[in-house]
Amino acid sequence: MYGLIGMMTATPGDRDALAAILLEGTGDMAGCLSYLVANDATDPDALWITEVWDTASSHQASLALPAVQAAIAKGRPLIRAFSNRVETVPLGGTGLTSGAS
Amino acid sequence: MYGLIGMMTATPGDRDALAAILLEGTGDMAGCLSYLVANDATDPDALWITEVWDTASSHQASLALPAVQAAIAKGRPLIRAFSNRVETVPLGGTGLTSGAS
Repeated sequence: MYGLIGMMTATPGDRDALAAILLEGTGDMAGCLSYLVANDATDPDALWITEVWDTASSHQASLALPAVQAAIAKGRPLIRAFSNRVETVPLGGTGLTSGAS
Repeated sequence: MYGLIGMMTATPGDRDALAAILLEGTGDMAGCLSYLVANDATDPDALWITEVWDTASSHQASLALPAVQAAIAKGRPLIRAFSNRVETVPLGGTGLTSGAS
Protein backbone atom coordinates (compact mmCIF):
# COMPACT_ATOMS: atom_id res chain seq x y z
CA MET A 1 0.00 0.00 0.00
CA TYR A 2 1.02 3.62 -0.46
CA GLY A 3 0.04 6.47 1.83
CA LEU A 4 0.19 10.23 2.02
CA ILE A 5 -0.36 12.65 4.88
CA GLY A 6 -0.25 16.37 4.19
CA MET A 7 -1.52 19.77 5.17
CA MET A 8 -3.09 22.35 2.88
CA THR A 9 -3.43 25.92 4.05
CA ALA A 10 -6.32 27.74 2.42
CA THR A 11 -6.38 31.40 1.59
CA PRO A 12 -8.09 33.13 4.55
CA GLY A 13 -11.78 32.35 4.75
CA ASP A 14 -11.68 29.73 2.01
CA ARG A 15 -11.12 26.51 3.94
CA ASP A 16 -14.72 25.31 3.80
CA ALA A 17 -14.94 25.93 0.06
CA LEU A 18 -11.63 24.14 -0.52
CA ALA A 19 -12.69 21.15 1.57
CA ALA A 20 -15.96 20.88 -0.36
CA ILE A 21 -14.09 20.89 -3.68
CA LEU A 22 -11.70 18.18 -2.46
CA LEU A 23 -14.52 15.97 -1.18
CA GLU A 24 -16.54 16.44 -4.35
CA GLY A 25 -13.71 15.62 -6.74
CA THR A 26 -12.34 12.55 -5.02
CA GLY A 27 -15.32 10.28 -4.48
CA ASP A 28 -14.55 7.61 -7.03
CA MET A 29 -10.87 6.88 -7.61
CA ALA A 30 -9.63 3.42 -8.60
CA GLY A 31 -7.27 1.94 -6.03
CA CYS A 32 -8.12 4.50 -3.36
CA LEU A 33 -8.59 2.70 -0.04
CA SER A 34 -8.99 5.79 2.12
CA TYR A 35 -9.15 9.53 1.39
CA LEU A 36 -10.06 11.73 4.32
CA VAL A 37 -10.34 15.48 4.58
CA ALA A 38 -10.19 17.07 8.03
CA ASN A 39 -10.02 20.55 9.49
CA ASP A 40 -7.07 21.26 11.73
CA ALA A 41 -8.57 21.69 15.20
CA THR A 42 -6.67 24.89 15.94
CA ASP A 43 -5.56 26.58 12.68
CA PRO A 44 -8.69 28.02 11.01
CA ASP A 45 -7.11 27.90 7.54
CA ALA A 46 -5.58 24.40 7.65
CA LEU A 47 -6.86 21.13 6.22
CA TRP A 48 -5.27 17.70 6.62
CA ILE A 49 -5.57 15.17 3.80
CA THR A 50 -4.73 11.54 4.60
CA GLU A 51 -4.71 9.01 1.79
CA VAL A 52 -4.21 5.26 1.36
CA TRP A 53 -3.83 3.72 -2.08
CA ASP A 54 -3.25 0.14 -3.18
CA THR A 55 -0.16 1.29 -5.10
CA ALA A 56 1.71 4.53 -5.78
CA SER A 57 0.75 4.08 -9.45
CA SER A 58 -2.95 4.26 -8.60
CA HIS A 59 -2.33 7.53 -6.81
CA GLN A 60 -0.39 8.85 -9.78
CA ALA A 61 -3.12 7.72 -12.19
CA SER A 62 -5.82 9.44 -10.13
CA LEU A 63 -4.26 12.82 -10.86
CA ALA A 64 -5.28 12.42 -14.50
CA LEU A 65 -8.97 11.67 -13.77
CA PRO A 66 -11.30 14.36 -15.14
CA ALA A 67 -13.01 14.87 -11.76
CA VAL A 68 -9.65 15.22 -10.02
CA GLN A 69 -8.33 17.56 -12.71
CA ALA A 70 -11.45 19.67 -12.29
CA ALA A 71 -11.00 19.72 -8.49
CA ILE A 72 -7.36 20.76 -8.87
CA ALA A 73 -8.29 23.59 -11.26
CA LYS A 74 -11.11 24.79 -9.01
CA GLY A 75 -9.22 24.38 -5.75
CA ARG A 76 -5.82 25.78 -6.71
CA PRO A 77 -6.73 29.49 -6.31
CA LEU A 78 -7.92 28.73 -2.76
CA ILE A 79 -4.63 27.09 -1.64
CA ARG A 80 -1.99 29.26 0.01
CA ALA A 81 0.47 26.48 0.84
CA PHE A 82 1.17 22.76 1.07
CA SER A 83 3.20 21.49 4.03
CA ASN A 84 3.93 18.59 6.36
CA ARG A 85 3.91 16.12 3.49
CA VAL A 86 4.78 12.58 4.53
CA GLU A 87 4.86 9.44 2.42
CA THR A 88 3.93 6.24 4.23
CA VAL A 89 3.61 2.51 3.73
CA PRO A 90 0.26 1.68 5.35
CA LEU A 91 0.18 -1.68 7.11
CA GLY A 92 -3.50 -2.07 7.94
CA GLY A 93 -6.16 -1.13 10.43
CA THR A 94 -9.80 -0.13 10.41
CA GLY A 95 -11.35 1.92 7.61
CA LEU A 96 -9.88 0.68 4.37
CA THR A 97 -12.33 0.23 1.52
CA SER A 98 -12.01 -2.59 -0.96
CA GLY A 99 -10.28 -0.39 -3.50
CA ALA A 100 -12.65 -1.54 -6.21
CA SER A 101 -14.00 1.21 -8.37
CA MET B 1 -16.09 13.71 14.23
CA TYR B 2 -12.78 13.78 16.05
CA GLY B 3 -9.42 12.95 14.49
CA LEU B 4 -5.82 12.38 15.47
CA ILE B 5 -2.63 12.21 13.42
CA GLY B 6 0.60 11.35 15.16
CA MET B 7 4.00 9.75 14.84
CA MET B 8 5.46 7.10 17.10
CA THR B 9 9.17 6.38 16.97
CA ALA B 10 10.03 2.85 17.98
CA THR B 11 13.18 1.80 19.75
CA PRO B 12 15.64 0.71 17.02
CA GLY B 13 14.61 -2.54 15.34
CA ASP B 14 11.23 -2.69 17.09
CA ARG B 15 8.93 -0.95 14.61
CA ASP B 16 7.41 -4.11 13.16
CA ALA B 17 6.71 -5.54 16.61
CA LEU B 18 5.17 -2.25 17.74
CA ALA B 19 2.97 -2.02 14.64
CA ALA B 20 1.73 -5.58 15.17
CA ILE B 21 0.79 -4.79 18.78
CA LEU B 22 -1.09 -1.66 17.71
CA LEU B 23 -3.00 -3.47 14.97
CA GLU B 24 -3.86 -6.37 17.25
CA GLY B 25 -5.13 -4.26 20.13
CA THR B 26 -7.29 -1.84 18.17
CA GLY B 27 -9.52 -4.00 16.00
CA ASP B 28 -12.81 -3.49 17.78
CA MET B 29 -13.33 -0.07 19.32
CA ALA B 30 -16.77 1.51 19.61
CA GLY B 31 -17.06 4.77 17.70
CA CYS B 32 -13.84 4.22 15.77
CA LEU B 33 -14.43 5.13 12.12
CA SER B 34 -10.83 4.74 10.95
CA TYR B 35 -7.61 3.62 12.65
CA LEU B 36 -4.65 3.18 10.35
CA VAL B 37 -1.08 2.21 11.11
CA ALA B 38 1.61 3.03 8.54
CA ASN B 39 5.37 2.90 8.30
CA ASP B 40 7.10 6.16 7.51
CA ALA B 41 8.53 5.69 4.01
CA THR B 42 11.97 7.02 4.95
CA ASP B 43 12.54 6.78 8.73
CA PRO B 44 12.99 3.07 9.57
CA ASP B 45 11.86 3.56 13.18
CA ALA B 46 8.79 5.73 12.58
CA LEU B 47 5.10 4.81 12.46
CA TRP B 48 2.19 7.09 11.66
CA ILE B 49 -1.16 6.52 13.33
CA THR B 50 -4.20 8.28 11.86
CA GLU B 51 -7.52 8.00 13.64
CA VAL B 52 -11.12 9.10 13.11
CA TRP B 53 -13.71 8.77 15.87
CA ASP B 54 -17.37 9.71 16.01
CA THR B 55 -16.63 11.82 19.11
CA ALA B 56 -13.65 12.69 21.31
CA SER B 57 -15.43 10.83 24.12
CA SER B 58 -15.34 7.58 22.14
CA HIS B 59 -11.60 8.00 21.70
CA GLN B 60 -11.20 8.69 25.41
CA ALA B 61 -13.34 5.66 26.32
CA SER B 62 -11.30 3.39 24.04
CA LEU B 63 -8.24 3.95 26.21
CA ALA B 64 -9.96 2.01 28.99
CA LEU B 65 -10.77 -1.05 26.86
CA PRO B 66 -8.95 -4.19 28.08
CA ALA B 67 -7.49 -4.91 24.62
CA VAL B 68 -6.24 -1.34 24.31
CA GLN B 69 -4.86 -1.37 27.85
CA ALA B 70 -3.02 -4.60 27.02
CA ALA B 71 -1.63 -3.08 23.80
CA ILE B 72 -0.44 0.01 25.69
CA ALA B 73 1.30 -2.13 28.32
CA LYS B 74 2.91 -4.36 25.70
CA GLY B 75 3.83 -1.56 23.31
CA ARG B 76 5.13 1.06 25.73
CA PRO B 77 8.66 -0.44 26.13
CA LEU B 78 9.03 -0.35 22.34
CA ILE B 79 8.21 3.37 22.00
CA ARG B 80 11.05 5.89 22.07
CA ALA B 81 8.98 8.99 21.35
CA PHE B 82 5.65 10.47 20.29
CA SER B 83 5.70 13.49 17.97
CA ASN B 84 3.84 15.44 15.30
CA ARG B 85 0.54 15.07 17.14
CA VAL B 86 -2.32 16.92 15.48
CA GLU B 87 -5.98 17.03 16.47
CA THR B 88 -8.43 17.34 13.60
CA VAL B 89 -12.12 17.66 12.86
CA PRO B 90 -12.67 15.17 10.01
CA LEU B 91 -15.22 16.29 7.45
CA GLY B 92 -15.65 13.18 5.33
CA GLY B 93 -14.18 11.19 2.49
CA THR B 94 -13.63 7.59 1.55
CA GLY B 95 -12.82 4.91 4.12
CA LEU B 96 -14.95 5.61 7.17
CA THR B 97 -16.57 2.58 8.76
CA SER B 98 -20.04 2.73 10.26
CA GLY B 99 -18.66 3.13 13.76
CA ALA B 100 -20.92 0.38 15.04
CA SER B 101 -19.20 -2.07 17.34
